[in-house]
Amino acid sequence: MSESINDLKIGVLGGGQLGRMMIQSAINYNLDVSLLDPDPNAPCAHLTANFQVGMLTDEEQVYNWGQTFDLITIEIENVSVAALKRLEKEGKQIYPQPEVIELIQDKRKQKTFYKANRIPTADFVLTDTKDEIKTHASMLPAVNKLGKEGYDGRGVQILKKEEDFEKAFEKPSLLESLIDFEKELSVVAARNKRGEVACFPVVELSYHPVQNLVEFLFAPAQIPIDIERKAHDMAKDVIQKLDMTGLLTVEMFLTKDGEILVNEIAPRTHNSGHHTIEANLTSQFEQHLRAILNMPLGSVDLTTPAAMVNLLGEDGFTGKAKYEGIEECMSMKGVYIHLYGKKLTKPFRKMGHVTIIDTSIKSLKEKARRVKDTLKVKA
Amino acid sequence: MSESINDLKIGVLGGGQLGRMMIQSAINYNLDVSLLDPDPNAPCAHLTANFQVGMLTDEEQVYNWGQTFDLITIEIENVSVAALKRLEKEGKQIYPQPEVIELIQDKRKQKTFYKANRIPTADFVLTDTKDEIKTHASMLPAVNKLGKEGYDGRGVQILKKEEDFEKAFEKPSLLESLIDFEKELSVVAARNKRGEVACFPVVELSYHPVQNLVEFLFAPAQIPIDIERKAHDMAKDVIQKLDMTGLLTVEMFLTKDGEILVNEIAPRTHNSGHHTIEANLTSQFEQHLRAILNMPLGSVDLTTPAAMVNLLGEDGFTGKAKYEGIEECMSMKGVYIHLYGKKLTKPFRKMGHVTIIDTSIKSLKEKARRVKDTLKVKA
Repeated sequence: MSESINDLKIGVLGGGQLGRMMIQSAINYNLDVSLLDPDPNAPCAHLTANFQVGMLTDEEQVYNWGQTFDLITIEIENVSVAALKRLEKEGKQIYPQPEVIELIQDKRKQKTFYKANRIPTADFVLTDTKDEIKTHASMLPAVNKLGKEGYDGRGVQILKKEEDFEKAFEKPSLLESLIDFEKELSVVAARNKRGEVACFPVVELSYHPVQNLVEFLFAPAQIPIDIERKAHDMAKDVIQKLDMTGLLTVEMFLTKDGEILVNEIAPRTHNSGHHTIEANLTSQFEQHLRAILNMPLGSVDLTTPAAMVNLLGEDGFTGKAKYEGIEECMSMKGVYIHLYGKKLTKPFRKMGHVTIIDTSIKSLKEKARRVKDTLKVKA
Repeated sequence: MSESINDLKIGVLGGGQLGRMMIQSAINYNLDVSLLDPDPNAPCAHLTANFQVGMLTDEEQVYNWGQTFDLITIEIENVSVAALKRLEKEGKQIYPQPEVIELIQDKRKQKTFYKANRIPTADFVLTDTKDEIKTHASMLPAVNKLGKEGYDGRGVQILKKEEDFEKAFEKPSLLESLIDFEKELSVVAARNKRGEVACFPVVELSYHPVQNLVEFLFAPAQIPIDIERKAHDMAKDVIQKLDMTGLLTVEMFLTKDGEILVNEIAPRTHNSGHHTIEANLTSQFEQHLRAILNMPLGSVDLTTPAAMVNLLGEDGFTGKAKYEGIEECMSMKGVYIHLYGKKLTKPFRKMGHVTIIDTSIKSLKEKARRVKDTLKVKA
């Protein structure tokens, strides 16, 4: 096996920023990676001669494209599971497995899975109509999530009072108790085919209250060691119960009572693991490749405290992206800019991220704030 | 300036492994990089849609290709300086400057430059014929170097005794006293257009006695602080006297008397800086880009002791490259494999490198040796 990773033809569904950083890692091992994405100007479009344009959710397109490969993986979960199941039946290796992707595509199935497997999560009910949701007034304040189609903060809304029921989803959705959490945590776990599991150190996220996107990430999370252990055990438990091969990001709430609840999971590299490129011995992108190639997993050790700031399109600007403040950020020590190469910016679009490392937590936080205030994407 | 690095069209002469690692860095800043190389299967050939095949030493080809760009740089110094001079005259930015490349292409000019600028270097004489060399018997043992065409150990030979004069070069060459050195050191220095200079910590090299290629590199060099300072001052002195913009690698001898002599220089990223990818806050590839883009230079801090092992084609094997021992190396902590994507291997061809990091020097050396003994390129 070890001699053959260079001979495998690897296909990746999705050619966005996660694919882009995966390619940067794959170059080190001279892996033969091809990508499919609907956007001819996707972040990966010009990085390789092996980029094709196609609909990820179209069964026939994905199925036909997939014929060429030995191993298929994803960088986004909104893909045709039907195509992947057919390809798997015909002997292709598909990691994460199509069943896992299918489960995670539907937040209702996800929640049902947690419940069935006694994985702690916020209380919830499955709902199909607005009227049904209205019968659960006792759960307020609550979060109303669409089963499918939610991504990057879309398809998720908070219902505070009974008046808010008017905006409740009239589609298969779920209503979940709003957790008054102490912190939001995330663990990126990896598992290879031999069943080895490795979890990156727990990180702490702060979300922007309006955009519902990660604003700051800090690694390691400032939490007691027993909480760290509990979070790791839970991530390990989830990836094992899914019997999954690949990378799994487990987003969690730490409640004010010190309880940990699984919030959402993603079967892939994740925004909450970007700092691993500079701050850990192995990056999440390399770890993903190691897991799906059934190679030994890399060390997850964090070598320095780190922060991550998302670079979002500035509100009020739409059009060809222009970056402000790059030079000032480049003059700061331990600051790593990652631009995703998206030509067009729009309000709150993820255009890049910046990782900041520093041995002093105080200076780390100051630098993260300064980066956030300095680097802007306008049009 | 800072807002415009993404709008610059950047051309790189050469598409080998140094170009490949430069691209990995350039992706972070979404730089628009194109490459030219004579080999349609060069390490960069499939990494970008902007790869072209052409002769680097052909004036018209380089000149025509260069028309498209705002900024041109190199990853190999054996290129048409005449073309670069014409392009520079027409307003293109060329870094390193054509004059610097021209000087470094000829070892005779290099040595003459050191002498004229009082930069300590081994004693030498310029020679044109074998007969002329024979008149310098008093310099033996000595090194005989071709002025031009030397690369990766070619065009360099040691003349120990008078009998060896028979193999002396019958071409413009130089004869240099053989230095009985204590250590071979290297410093990668960077300088941007504003004249900022930054030197990476001194590293220590051990060359393979037969192949004349770097076998092991260790960072930092195990040398007293005053030698470190002297080596940095010398590298700084050389890059300033060249008035050069870009990266300059200065290879040095530390003599048994504690003297430092400049051996050779290269106006580009270098094998002796590969470890900076994992072991320093800024990699040499990013530093090169920062220098030529006139951006602030990055911090050169070494964050961990590191070693580097070149992965050379195994003696006795020629043909399609096969890698042995990858899995075992991937199971070692802090071991980073870089394969260059060369399809064909031949004895001693540079096929990749491995960086090893460890907080313990003892364990670092053990791991470097184990990598060297484990990872093999055969056919």
